[in-house]
Amino acid sequence: MTTTVIDDIGLLVTNDPVLGPGELGLLTGASVVFEEETVISVGPRGQIADERIDAAGRCVIPGFVDSHTHLVFAGDRAEEFTARMAGRPYDGGGIRVTTEATRNASDAELARLLAARLLEAHRAGTTTVEIKSGYGLDVPTEERIVTLASRVTTETTFLGAHLVPAEYEGRADDYVELVCGEMLDACAPHSRWIDVFCETGAFDVDQSRRVLTAGRARGLGLRLHANQLGPGPAVRLGVSMGCGSVDHCTYLSDDDIEALAGSDTVATFLPATDFSTRQPYPDARRAVDAGVDIAVATNCNPGSSYTTSVSFCIALAVRDMGLTIEEALAAVTVGGARALRRPDLGRLTPGSRAHAVILEAPSYHHLAYRPGVPLVARTIGPLEGRARQLTSGLPT
Amino acid sequence: MTTTVIDDIGLLVTNDPVLGPGELGLLTGASVVFEEETVISVGPRGQIADERIDAAGRCVIPGFVDSHTHLVFAGDRAEEFTARMAGRPYDGGGIRVTTEATRNASDAELARLLAARLLEAHRAGTTTVEIKSGYGLDVPTEERIVTLASRVTTETTFLGAHLVPAEYEGRADDYVELVCGEMLDACAPHSRWIDVFCETGAFDVDQSRRVLTAGRARGLGLRLHANQLGPGPAVRLGVSMGCGSVDHCTYLSDDDIEALAGSDTVATFLPATDFSTRQPYPDARRAVDAGVDIAVATNCNPGSSYTTSVSFCIALAVRDMGLTIEEALAAVTVGGARALRRPDLGRLTPGSRAHAVILEAPSYHHLAYRPGVPLVARTIGPLEGRARQLTSGLPT
Repeated sequence: MTTTVIDDIGLLVTNDPVLGPGELGLLTGASVVFEEETVISVGPRGQIADERIDAAGRCVIPGFVDSHTHLVFAGDRAEEFTARMAGRPYDGGGIRVTTEATRNASDAELARLLAARLLEAHRAGTTTVEIKSGYGLDVPTEERIVTLASRVTTETTFLGAHLVPAEYEGRADDYVELVCGEMLDACAPHSRWIDVFCETGAFDVDQSRRVLTAGRARGLGLRLHANQLGPGPAVRLGVSMGCGSVDHCTYLSDDDIEALAGSDTVATFLPATDFSTRQPYPDARRAVDAGVDIAVATNCNPGSSYTTSVSFCIALAVRDMGLTIEEALAAVTVGGARALRRPDLGRLTPGSRAHAVILEAPSYHHLAYRPGVPLVARTIGPLEGRARQLTSGLPT
Repeated sequence: MTTTVIDDIGLLVTNDPVLGPGELGLLTGASVVFEEETVISVGPRGQIADERIDAAGRCVIPGFVDSHTHLVFAGDRAEEFTARMAGRPYDGGGIRVTTEATRNASDAELARLLAARLLEAHRAGTTTVEIKSGYGLDVPTEERIVTLASRVTTETTFLGAHLVPAEYEGRADDYVELVCGEMLDACAPHSRWIDVFCETGAFDVDQSRRVLTAGRARGLGLRLHANQLGPGPAVRLGVSMGCGSVDHCTYLSDDDIEALAGSDTVATFLPATDFSTRQPYPDARRAVDAGVDIAVATNCNPGSSYTTSVSFCIALAVRDMGLTIEEALAAVTVGGARALRRPDLGRLTPGSRAHAVILEAPSYHHLAYRPGVPLVARTIGPLEGRARQLTSGLPT
C-alpha cells in the first residue's frame, strides 16, 4: 500500500497530549505519515514515504469534524433571512418551504445539491460531516434523505421528528407514531443516529422520549436538539437517556450544567445559528469550567445557519462564547469526534484517520485572528471524492 | 480593442438606479460588455463581444471597493489578539511590534507580503484597495510604504500620523513637525491622500488639523481616523475640513450625525475591527436614516482587524449595524467609491470601470445569508495582475 508523508509542518496540532505540549499536543518541525486513510507515524520533519505533500512550514491541524449539519435539502430561504435581519414580519412558511422544495426535488437534484455543499465544506477544511434528515417529514422523502446521506457519511441521523408537518397539524402524537413506526422502519437501516427537536413548538419531553426510545430499540445512537429557544427540560432528558450529544444548548441552567458535567453526553454549540438568528450566544466558558465536554459545529441548514464554514464558528466561539482558540479548535475536531463517539477522528496520532488541513497560516491562532478569510490551503480527507462519486453517474 | 461580455447573468447589481429598480439598479437575465477596463454596454443576455465570460445564471455585482486598509506591513500579532480575546493583559508592544518588523523588512519582503494580501483580497471579490502607510513612522520607511502601495493602487494614503513612534515619546509636536515637513516631502509624490489618527492617545485636534492642512497644501485629499475609541471632536473636524471620509465612527453624537448629514464627507464603518476588538458596533442605521453617506471597509491590519474579507464585513453590517443587505452592499461598492471620490468605481453602468464579481449564488442576499462562506466564483478586476507584477521581478 502507498504511504504518504505530510512534510515540513511548521506547527502541528495532533490533539494527542502524549505527543506534545497542551491538550492540542503541539509539535514544531514535524511530519505525519499515513497509509490509506490511517496515520502510521508522527515524527520530526523528513520522514520518508512513497508520496510527499509539502506543508512548506505552515500549520497543519486535524480536519474539522462537523458533527451537526442538515446538508440534504432543496431551495433556499434568503428572503426569510433578510426579513428577519431587517426586523420585518415574514410568513413565507419557514421550514415548510424547505420541506416542500425537498419533497419535490428529484434524487439527482438532491445529490447535486449535496455534492456542491460537500465540496464547499471540503474546501473549508471539513473532513467529516454528520448529516440529519428532517426536511422530508414523510416516509418516502425521509428515506430518500438518509439513503443519500449514507452514501457520503457513516454519521447519518434520522430526524423525522424535526417538526410536525402541515398535514399533521394539531395531531403531533399521530405524527410521532408515524416517526416511531413506519418512518423509522424505512430510515433505520440507513442511519446511525436518531434525533428529535425537543422544544416548545416542536416535540415535548414525552414525545421526544418516545422517539429516542424507539430509535434505541432499533440500535440507533441518540442525539437531541435541546434548549435552543429557551430554558427547558430537554438537556436533562438527553443526559438521562445517554445521548451522544445535546445540541444548541443556548440556554443552560445550573442543573443542566451539573447533569452534563457528570455524563458522557457532549454539549454541542452552534454559534453560527445564534449569529444568523440574532439569538444570544451560549456561555460555553461556563460549561467548560464546569467540566462539560463540548463540541462546536455549523448546523448548516437553509433556515437558521446557512454556512459550511467551521472557521467562522471558531471565530464566533472565541469572540462571543468565551472559549480560547485552543478550546475552540479542540471543540471542532476532537470535540466533534466525541459527540459522534468516533475516537478515530479529530486527532493526528498513530491509528487515527489521516484527515488533515494545511492552513495558509503559521499558526491555528489565525482561524480566529483572521475572521472571514478562507485559510485552508489544502484539505486531506474523503469528502471531495465522495462528492464526485455522488454526481459521477448523474445525467448532465 | 478586444471586447468582452459577461453573459447569462441571473441577477445583476448595477448600482445605477437609471438601469433598473432600487438603488441597486437590479436587472435579471442581463449581460455586461466591456472594452479594456471600461463598461460599454449593459443589456439583456446575449450581447455579442470578442470574448465571453459565462455567469451561468448566477448573480453579478460590482467589485468591492475596500476604501480603508493598511495592507503594507510585516509580522503578525496573533498572540496579542489571542490575549485580548482571552481577557489577559498583554504588553507585547502593540503597533510598535508591527513598526519594528516593517522597518526591518526588505523591499522584496514587503512586496511579497503585499502581493499575497492583494491576491487574497482579489479572490474575495475586492477590485479596488485604498492602502495607508503608517507602520514606518520614520521618513525612509514611510516613503518605502507609499512607494510600494502606489505601484498597485492610485488610492495611496500617507498616514505618517498613525501614532507617535517610540523615539518621539513625549514629543508628539516634534513628530508632527517631522510628519508635516520632511516626511510629507518624501511621501506626497507617491500619495493621493493624507490621513491622521485623531484620538486620545494618538493625535489631538490641533495636531490633526496641522497634518491635514499641510497635506492639503501639497495637493493631497483628506481622510481621518475618527471616533474609534470614544466620543470626541474628530468627526466634526473631518467634516469642517472637507475630508473625503471620516473612518471608524464607532461613537457618533447627534452633533456628529448632523454635521455629516449636511456634508460631502462619507462616514466609513469598519465592523471587522469592532469584531476583533470586542468594541460596540456603530449604529449605522441611525446615520443612514439621518441622510449620512456611508461606506463599509475592512481596515485590514495586523492589530485590530486582520481580514481582507469584505463579505465578512457585509454580514456584520447586516447583523450588528442595522443595515439592510442592500445598504450594506451599496456601502462596500458605491459607498467605498464615494469615500474615495471615485465616481468611476462601484457601478456596472456604461462608462464605469469593468470591475465585477460573479457570485457562487443566485442573489447578493447570500453575502449575509451565508456568513463565512467564500462566495466569489470569479473576480474581474486588476488586483491579481498587479500582485503578479509586484513579485515577477523579485529574486526567488
